[in-house]
Amino acid sequence: MKFCNQCGADVEKRVPEGDNRPRHVCTACGTIHYQNPRIIAGCLPVHGDRVLLCRRAIEPRLGYWTLPAGFMENGESTEDAARRETLEEACAEVEIQSLYTLTSIVHVNQVQLIYLAEMPVPSFGPSEESLEVCLFDEAEIPWDSLAFETIRQVLRLYFADRKQQRFPLRHIEIDSNAFHSARVHD
Amino acid sequence: MKFCNQCGADVEKRVPEGDNRPRHVCTACGTIHYQNPRIIAGCLPVHGDRVLLCRRAIEPRLGYWTLPAGFMENGESTEDAARRETLEEACAEVEIQSLYTLTSIVHVNQVQLIYLAEMPVPSFGPSEESLEVCLFDEAEIPWDSLAFETIRQVLRLYFADRKQQRFPLRHIEIDSNAFHSARVHD
Ligand SMILES: [Zn+2]
Ligand SMILES: [Zn+2]
Repeated sequence: MKFCNQCGADVEKRVPEGDNRPRHVCTACGTIHYQNPRIIAGCLPVHGDRVLLCRRAIEPRLGYWTLPAGFMENGESTEDAARRETLEEACAEVEIQSLYTLTSIVHVNQVQLIYLAEMPVPSFGPSEESLEVCLFDEAEIPWDSLAFETIRQVLRLYFADRKQQRFPLRHIEIDSNAFHSARVHD
Repeated sequence: MKFCNQCGADVEKRVPEGDNRPRHVCTACGTIHYQNPRIIAGCLPVHGDRVLLCRRAIEPRLGYWTLPAGFMENGESTEDAARRETLEEACAEVEIQSLYTLTSIVHVNQVQLIYLAEMPVPSFGPSEESLEVCLFDEAEIPWDSLAFETIRQVLRLYFADRKQQRFPLRHIEIDSNAFHSARVHD
């Protein structure tokens, strides 16, 4: 950030009065431009004993498999966002069951919320954002072709929890781009 | 938003190619400036059968009571943020138990996460952000002097759930400034 989006003047990085960390502050109008984590909302859609994955049609990680999820927009709830992303990316309508994972992706300033969701009818398909969309049973999951570590963690936890048929909210913390870097706790 | 924070040129509001909603797009460098909901993280600190509230020293709602909570910063997890806000606003160290409420505050583009937290030692006090900090039992809660509808909902649910000693994650949706406008579901 180099310029104030309110008045166009230069911004400088300094600690505002009463604050305790550096912010981008406008040198002319004084507006403080805060930068905060963004929310990614999505679903783990389930039909019978299979889960729905999308093969990404866009960068990053084009061609790799992921769950339908994307940035939450202004003017919607977290569940609205999760349902919308599932419809946009997988052309699937789902019934949200519960919040299943909350992942703090610290190094990129994102918080990912994945809802467990029932897909009563196995109706889905590709979209502008997905090259293909498929149902996978546990043995078929393309573990080596997953797009993101966050998604690998969600799927790993899901298949473990499914053995007990209990899906408590899981907190995950990831602070590097490396796979296998997650810290998971209840 | 009137100017591009990357190059200082004018921004216009239009739907970018491949998108489906209007964004602020720079007329010179083409940068798309997304605006997304922000996360507020905090705690419901409990000591014995009492809960900790803070009387706000800052606007909005100066002088009214609230739970310790504030905007999540870049570079931290949601739980880090909840603990930090509790330390900053109430000078209290807590042990987080579980995520208790997730509130989509749709009309102001915020998502509020409140963690249930144990306060093993009743050590707390005022701060730059709190005029006073006190433990309240259920009968003492200042219901008519609470700062925000979100906080009223969290406390209302907490005292109801405490009768069963079960604290499942609650989803709340609020889409107006009016008190009593919340929609609550599991
Ligand atoms: Zn300015
Ligand atoms: Zn620009």
